[in-house]
Amino acid sequence: DVGCGTGVLSMLCAKICQPSQVIAVEATESTARIADALVHHNGLQGIVTVVNRPIEMLDLSAPVDAIVSEWMGFYAFHESMLDSVLYARDKWLKPDGLLLPDSCRLWAAVVSEDGWKKDNVDFYHNYYSLDFAPFGNALALEAMANPQVQLLSTEEILSDPALVVGVDIHTVTSEQLNKIEARLSMPLKKNGNVAAVSFWFDVGFPNTDQPLCTSPFSPPTHWKQTSIFLGCFAPAAAGVQFECQVTLERASPKSRQYSITVET
Amino acid sequence: DVGCGTGVLSMLCAKICQPSQVIAVEATESTARIADALVHHNGLQGIVTVVNRPIEMLDLSAPVDAIVSEWMGFYAFHESMLDSVLYARDKWLKPDGLLLPDSCRLWAAVVSEDGWKKDNVDFYHNYYSLDFAPFGNALALEAMANPQVQLLSTEEILSDPALVVGVDIHTVTSEQLNKIEARLSMPLKKNGNVAAVSFWFDVGFPNTDQPLCTSPFSPPTHWKQTSIFLGCFAPAAAGVQFECQVTLERASPKSRQYSITVET
Repeated sequence: DVGCGTGVLSMLCAKICQPSQVIAVEATESTARIADALVHHNGLQGIVTVVNRPIEMLDLSAPVDAIVSEWMGFYAFHESMLDSVLYARDKWLKPDGLLLPDSCRLWAAVVSEDGWKKDNVDFYHNYYSLDFAPFGNALALEAMANPQVQLLSTEEILSDPALVVGVDIHTVTSEQLNKIEARLSMPLKKNGNVAAVSFWFDVGFPNTDQPLCTSPFSPPTHWKQTSIFLGCFAPAAAGVQFECQVTLERASPKSRQYSITVET
Repeated sequence: DVGCGTGVLSMLCAKICQPSQVIAVEATESTARIADALVHHNGLQGIVTVVNRPIEMLDLSAPVDAIVSEWMGFYAFHESMLDSVLYARDKWLKPDGLLLPDSCRLWAAVVSEDGWKKDNVDFYHNYYSLDFAPFGNALALEAMANPQVQLLSTEEILSDPALVVGVDIHTVTSEQLNKIEARLSMPLKKNGNVAAVSFWFDVGFPNTDQPLCTSPFSPPTHWKQTSIFLGCFAPAAAGVQFECQVTLERASPKSRQYSITVET
């Protein structure tokens, strides 16, 4: 378990999959201590071993059958631990070993952001009978300059989702993740104010076709969706082809932070 | 208007009370600039004058008829601007001038915190079929060491509200606010787990008996209520007399931060 946190996945693996051993690796000392306490509290110390160490410092007597990790950040890649999983894969996974998850897909769609606009722009036009539009506009423009992590309503989705990138965790390299680019062409399915391109992801698991999906069409998760605003709320009609260039790029090599740009 | 922020109260005064002049005083330059823009945007520049200055640096040609201020912080006094209002009152208010608000009352009641306990303690006892109680307890104890600003459900109120202090804004001095003490004796109205003493306030206005009230029995406000936890969830029966000593004390003289203690 790469970056085990409180050890919840390690313990669930221990209980459900009945392996002979689970190694729960956590770099942060205070977190590893909590994980260890919880493993004992749940009587799983015979199976789960918490190791307080960066994955790069791990020493094992033999390779492992499976790697599990909840490595995903916002829009999957931002502040994520995927690099650590890839390190663990290359160093410690048996050639035919399992990765959980073993795939990741990043999706994009054109969205209207009607809910956001109502709360952040329209609200200020009649503020206790005063017109606070200049204030609301300044706040809105400031917020729109940054990715907004928020739950979209499905009514706000104006296009079908388009695949930005599909990642096979078995084969992808850290270098391939330095820059992710896609040219997207998305026909609008209905009329609406084009405001943003929103991103979400799903991750797949071996031997099941049930991904963990963070789409606005799936039950909400803490990852929500991430919207990149285009700077205006432009009315557009069903059938219009929305074209854009999407770029995800690490702030610097090895950085876990990405900058994300959408060019129309 | 002492600490006018965006100038909303100044503009409402200008529109509703039709005075010859409103002076909107705001110490923070960027905020004063916003207030000034909004005053112009709403066509009120003939009545409302924004002055970017600490109230202590204000210079007027004549005293004012009324002082309005939204000075209240959490449990009224924490991080509040009341001292600035008192300064303005002593220096610039006519002898028979109006203060809005002109009174403030701080209330306390014994509460069960069932909602908080459910989310912060009970939740961890069955966490995806694992027992995360040690983790939940550590988080809960850490949170309980600090005042919790939260909306109470009226079912969680175990006693009638007791008055901690009533302040007449016409006469109170800054020195009197350095330390506020009260010995409270509150009979429990019903059975419940005694968990905290919760605080809220109301402020009154001249010529009306309609206070602005932040009680859990009133519509919610951003002030919510502030609970001081007692460290346990102790079952108690209706009729039991709950006694405590409440102390609000400034972190240092002139500080706008208070520490609040409840001794049982």
